[in-house]
Amino acid sequence: MQEFANLNLETNVWAKIMGKPQNAISPSRQEDFPEWYQQVVRAADLAENSEVRGCMVIKPWGYGLWEQIQSQLDSMFKATGHKNAYFPLLIPLSYLEKEAEHAEGFATECAVVTHHRLEAQKDEEGNTKLVPTGELSEPFIIRPTSETIIGAAFARWIESYRDLPLLINQWANVMRWEMRPRLFLRTAEFLWQEGHTVHETSDEAWEETEKILDVYEKFAREHLAIPVITGEKTENERFPGADRTLCIEAMVQDRKAIQAGTSHFLGQNFSKASDISFAGRDGTKQFGWTTSWGVSTRLIGTLIMAHGDDDGVRIPPMVAPTQIIILPIIPKEENRQAVINAAESLAESLGSSNYGGLPIRVEVDKRDMQGGAKNWEWIKKGAPIRVEIGPRDIEKGNVAVTRRDRSPKEKEFIPNEEFIQGVAKLLEDIQFSLLERATRLKEEHMTRIDSMKEFIEFFTPSNTEKPEIHGGFALCHWAGSNEEEERIAKEHKVTIRCIPHGEQYAEEGTCILTGQPSSRRVVFSKAY
Amino acid sequence: MQEFANLNLETNVWAKIMGKPQNAISPSRQEDFPEWYQQVVRAADLAENSEVRGCMVIKPWGYGLWEQIQSQLDSMFKATGHKNAYFPLLIPLSYLEKEAEHAEGFATECAVVTHHRLEAQKDEEGNTKLVPTGELSEPFIIRPTSETIIGAAFARWIESYRDLPLLINQWANVMRWEMRPRLFLRTAEFLWQEGHTVHETSDEAWEETEKILDVYEKFAREHLAIPVITGEKTENERFPGADRTLCIEAMVQDRKAIQAGTSHFLGQNFSKASDISFAGRDGTKQFGWTTSWGVSTRLIGTLIMAHGDDDGVRIPPMVAPTQIIILPIIPKEENRQAVINAAESLAESLGSSNYGGLPIRVEVDKRDMQGGAKNWEWIKKGAPIRVEIGPRDIEKGNVAVTRRDRSPKEKEFIPNEEFIQGVAKLLEDIQFSLLERATRLKEEHMTRIDSMKEFIEFFTPSNTEKPEIHGGFALCHWAGSNEEEERIAKEHKVTIRCIPHGEQYAEEGTCILTGQPSSRRVVFSKAY
Repeated sequence: MQEFANLNLETNVWAKIMGKPQNAISPSRQEDFPEWYQQVVRAADLAENSEVRGCMVIKPWGYGLWEQIQSQLDSMFKATGHKNAYFPLLIPLSYLEKEAEHAEGFATECAVVTHHRLEAQKDEEGNTKLVPTGELSEPFIIRPTSETIIGAAFARWIESYRDLPLLINQWANVMRWEMRPRLFLRTAEFLWQEGHTVHETSDEAWEETEKILDVYEKFAREHLAIPVITGEKTENERFPGADRTLCIEAMVQDRKAIQAGTSHFLGQNFSKASDISFAGRDGTKQFGWTTSWGVSTRLIGTLIMAHGDDDGVRIPPMVAPTQIIILPIIPKEENRQAVINAAESLAESLGSSNYGGLPIRVEVDKRDMQGGAKNWEWIKKGAPIRVEIGPRDIEKGNVAVTRRDRSPKEKEFIPNEEFIQGVAKLLEDIQFSLLERATRLKEEHMTRIDSMKEFIEFFTPSNTEKPEIHGGFALCHWAGSNEEEERIAKEHKVTIRCIPHGEQYAEEGTCILTGQPSSRRVVFSKAY
Repeated sequence: MQEFANLNLETNVWAKIMGKPQNAISPSRQEDFPEWYQQVVRAADLAENSEVRGCMVIKPWGYGLWEQIQSQLDSMFKATGHKNAYFPLLIPLSYLEKEAEHAEGFATECAVVTHHRLEAQKDEEGNTKLVPTGELSEPFIIRPTSETIIGAAFARWIESYRDLPLLINQWANVMRWEMRPRLFLRTAEFLWQEGHTVHETSDEAWEETEKILDVYEKFAREHLAIPVITGEKTENERFPGADRTLCIEAMVQDRKAIQAGTSHFLGQNFSKASDISFAGRDGTKQFGWTTSWGVSTRLIGTLIMAHGDDDGVRIPPMVAPTQIIILPIIPKEENRQAVINAAESLAESLGSSNYGGLPIRVEVDKRDMQGGAKNWEWIKKGAPIRVEIGPRDIEKGNVAVTRRDRSPKEKEFIPNEEFIQGVAKLLEDIQFSLLERATRLKEEHMTRIDSMKEFIEFFTPSNTEKPEIHGGFALCHWAGSNEEEERIAKEHKVTIRCIPHGEQYAEEGTCILTGQPSSRRVVFSKAY
């Protein structure tokens, strides 16, 4: 609440001074968080629904964000020894059948290809219609994930322990038929990466599972400015077919959790199902130990919900497609060329500096449109720094700089050279301020809860008009059964997000439901 | 023929000296080009067939090559003002129906999704089988190309002439059901980019169509070291739904043509079908002028056939995933650490130099395997430069350098520092030598042909045992009808690859078939 309140104050004061309507996004986060989210996605021009139910169109600004996420994560995977490859989109039904739990887990959400051609036929009214023909002897599903099809390839590739570890990643689209789609968060088709690795021993596979979780945690914190919790899923929430599932969970501004990435220790379940075996050091046949892990375009939804404000999205500088947008101010046509030249020369200077090990991404918005509208567009899109430059600025050797993490009112006039010299530091500051704000939110709304009474109060909205605002992350002792966990999920719409890593959660206590002894707290939360 | 002969000489002489079997790849290009191709793809560890008919697995070395192609082309698209976005994998049948020619062109090769879930059922023997259920009211096809689904989005995005030009590109997988698949050249699923643009005027759309062809030609020449012919397709060979199709065509070592990229001027066909309209400068509703253009993983097949030799593939330095492979020679275990250290220090020095505007890609192959086998593996994979370093080289301050474009026998000992200083130049030399060789091949086998008699002789194998070796590119005058063009294709398996760009082809003459006057030669060839 406080989080929202502060922010609204800033922008409202500014709105009054400038005579602008309150905020760019209506409703506000406080008024209706789910609707605010949809409006931000639209206003920031990130994505839109297509006529294909559940399949989104990722627009250039949203895809630019994904390109940054992809290339930066990809570098981290490569630095840890992984190589990319590509496997078929289609999976024969018989492959899915090999691992029973896995098949059961995905059966209800598979797009099934049954035919391989179309034929024009006339319908009753004489109109030509295309109808499927060429029925396949064995149907295919569009991959919802690729353990089975990649497993079949790995079985061919691996002969001896010398071929291990095998460390592969795939960037791909996948489909999981989705009845209640929501842009970025839950879509029938989404983009992701899926890592698949094979190891000689259980220990090595477990080490990989944990190493990747560290990569995800670090990427979320340092690149997305999101302070996630790391931990392990309970049996109920595990990936179908996995022995253990690790995850990163983010708290977003309505205090719900979003699972932002998972890393699975698959034991020998898939290697036995797909015969991923090798001649061991002693010459005997052994089954590999496998892992799989993934993050998806859901990270974009997480980023929006973590950092957006009532004026749109705020993209952390590390992953912003454009980190600095230069807006030429052209009061008279005769100034145009001089202003454009100054803007482009500034862009060139800025672009030759580095931030986060990469050249700074600068764009000059030369479109011929009203300056206020243009400025608001970039506020909504969340470019970290906006720079205005006009004839008077050129005269004075200044630029007018506004940070997206501060109020639009806080415009600073900075001498050109000083701005160029300090720009990497400025981006770093913005990155840090977003992380700090998100960390504060998480810390304020993560609480130890020691009884069912408190638990229910914590997750019951204080204001019945805003049912989406709830308590946050409840750290509880838990020793209940799987069935009891499910009952809580059903009754209170609250699930165990993870058994969190970290010494601070290893305490002796008693389960909030059963009163049984417990030696570690778990994180309960409402979730996306 | 000469091309093969020279090469075989080099490698055979070397083979005798070294007491090695003739070449790494059997059969040779001369013996059986199609089989040689399959063997190279396998030996170079680029890709393999999967159990899903027509769908390939792109292995790490092949995918690494695609990553280079992708990122370098992507920079060229961005430099010409294009932005990436992402559109749905699935296309409703009703969309495909909108443009009649387009629908007809793709109907026979569409994967059709008809169901959205699976159900476990017991078969007669009591085994559980998954069967499709949840039939869709309207089936979807997996995109064979995205004009229709992207057109629907563009229709939403564009309101006024101010929104134009709209310059979008998508990197994606597509499916065209393929009865005679061949790795990289013709696969049911392939990876590609598809550009889609909308313009205010016909002229602007045509300019875009030509500009992209230039990008493709330049990329093929400067990055892939392939000297393509640019030109326009005849009506018979046009993209279904296009007004005009431009293309780049490569000649590969069996002298056949490969269409390596196409750029389509779509006129207003798709804009009228999808209602991509805008308020023009005069306020009236107008339809956009659209283009589309693409290259695919087929470029990898083209590269292999253009540059491979009887020892494997030869990858041009610009796009090689690893440009320099360092092979530590460890005669005794006690030398190991010193040699590995020297190799890694050399890798670091090389990696801090640039070639083609990017850091040089170096890898140290530390695997514990026999040195000869390791060396041959990298020959087959076609890394441009192999560097051996052992205790004696360290002592002398030398490295042993072998270029992939020369015989494996031509090993040069170069002082360390000299090698580091000259490495960018060396890569440039290799790049150039591959381009030069491919250019020579093209020029030797591109001939003016002025009668049907000559034409038939040109395309009739001189040696009936090697039916795949044929004449090359025949530059002929042509004024026949579409039907006559089809007849030639049927009778002689020769098609018009393009009406080539360039003043040198604008000559007055008479059609080789009909004797009618013609003012320009076309390129006939057998083709992949």
